[in-house]
Amino acid sequence: MIKVVKVGGGIIEDENALSTFLDSFSKIEGPKVLVHGGGRLATKVAERLGYETKMVEGRRVTDENMLEVVTMVYGGLANKKIVAKLQAKGTNALGLSGADGNLIQAHKRPVKDVDYGWVGDIDNINSDLLLNLIENNIVPVVAPLSHNGEGKMLNTNADTIASTVATALSKKSATQLILGFELDGVLRDFNDKSSVIENITPELFEQYKSEGIISDGMIPKLSNAFDAINAGVESVKICNALKVGGDLGTVISK
Amino acid sequence: MIKVVKVGGGIIEDENALSTFLDSFSKIEGPKVLVHGGGRLATKVAERLGYETKMVEGRRVTDENMLEVVTMVYGGLANKKIVAKLQAKGTNALGLSGADGNLIQAHKRPVKDVDYGWVGDIDNINSDLLLNLIENNIVPVVAPLSHNGEGKMLNTNADTIASTVATALSKKSATQLILGFELDGVLRDFNDKSSVIENITPELFEQYKSEGIISDGMIPKLSNAFDAINAGVESVKICNALKVGGDLGTVISK
Repeated sequence: MIKVVKVGGGIIEDENALSTFLDSFSKIEGPKVLVHGGGRLATKVAERLGYETKMVEGRRVTDENMLEVVTMVYGGLANKKIVAKLQAKGTNALGLSGADGNLIQAHKRPVKDVDYGWVGDIDNINSDLLLNLIENNIVPVVAPLSHNGEGKMLNTNADTIASTVATALSKKSATQLILGFELDGVLRDFNDKSSVIENITPELFEQYKSEGIISDGMIPKLSNAFDAINAGVESVKICNALKVGGDLGTVISK
Repeated sequence: MIKVVKVGGGIIEDENALSTFLDSFSKIEGPKVLVHGGGRLATKVAERLGYETKMVEGRRVTDENMLEVVTMVYGGLANKKIVAKLQAKGTNALGLSGADGNLIQAHKRPVKDVDYGWVGDIDNINSDLLLNLIENNIVPVVAPLSHNGEGKMLNTNADTIASTVATALSKKSATQLILGFELDGVLRDFNDKSSVIENITPELFEQYKSEGIISDGMIPKLSNAFDAINAGVESVKICNALKVGGDLGTVISK
């Protein structure tokens, strides 16, 4: 089973959290891929360069200057920091943007109500590249950048990349998507952080929604998980980003 | 014959020159590796971030802030720009820093008269990684960054990386090192830009030096070329960076 792990930018900019996450990630046995964010770090670097960060509904508007920043920060600073630290832990990591080996081909998002600028909607994942690296005991570390095949890098959301990469890999080999976040899993009782629901199936999802156990922010997260499963991913695990190598978490499956 | 091409930072920061170089590089047939610089771009970004660039004898002093800059600029901005543009030209490029796949392991340069900071002196090149990529018709694009195996990126001169990579590859397969610069080759008469010397052997090198045909800045360049050849590289071509795919240039061999 190939495991595709997604970790957000909040962990990456915090040295201690990053170190704990990478320790846990290193412990995952078997073939694996890491997809990372880096938004908060990009915002900081942009600010120091005098560029204003514009967000629309939580999404970064990527003008020419911001594209330069995310290319530097996601593809360089964040990616190489993670790769170097994994190497030190004995994990043979290799960093990739979507342009590298034509990993993630995308097109610029068409302008409708909002012009997101140089943001890429994914057309194709080169899963053979990932499989070749995995066969050579290499752990691909993917930055949230795609390219348009015409010489331009594009900014693409890390969650979307993780889910699309997992789906593409699932056509060739059984794949699990692991989504790290700040809790130990989906909770039965939000006030009890230890009340982790171990498994959620489509039937249980409907039941928990009707009972009000699952609500608000968890619904889109779980809907996305079921989208990945319906597209071929064997299961999705939602767990604490700092414990991705452990057993704790909620496993979503058919 | 594997060709290892080195291109400097001056070309990379100039959009037109970069485009011409990459067109020419794309025309090189057979297996190839690109090693790029990026110093001028790093100096610009550092300046905009308020960091002062300190050079000692033409070498960048790399403190913690400057290491962050070169990691972003070499590994992110410059490397991904080159890779995306090569992809657009149908060349399946894949960018690597020295940490990626443990490509270039180094140690921090010991402090003697000068403390260069986070500068890496190379210990080992993972040539198997390059050969595996090459076998899969991938063109590795190497940024001038190494790592120390303990989680730290290090700044390493692109000429040194190109020469060391070529030497490491030469143990496995015949390899040519191609050094791009601003002239068409080593000139017989410095005032006649077309007076390119086609071939230089050790005997001719001694002869040209004694005749005063080769002097000054060309001597260390040619000495470095002979060092690479003595270490196993089949030949070194010194040519115009904008014409690396052509026949023009000076070929140095035994």
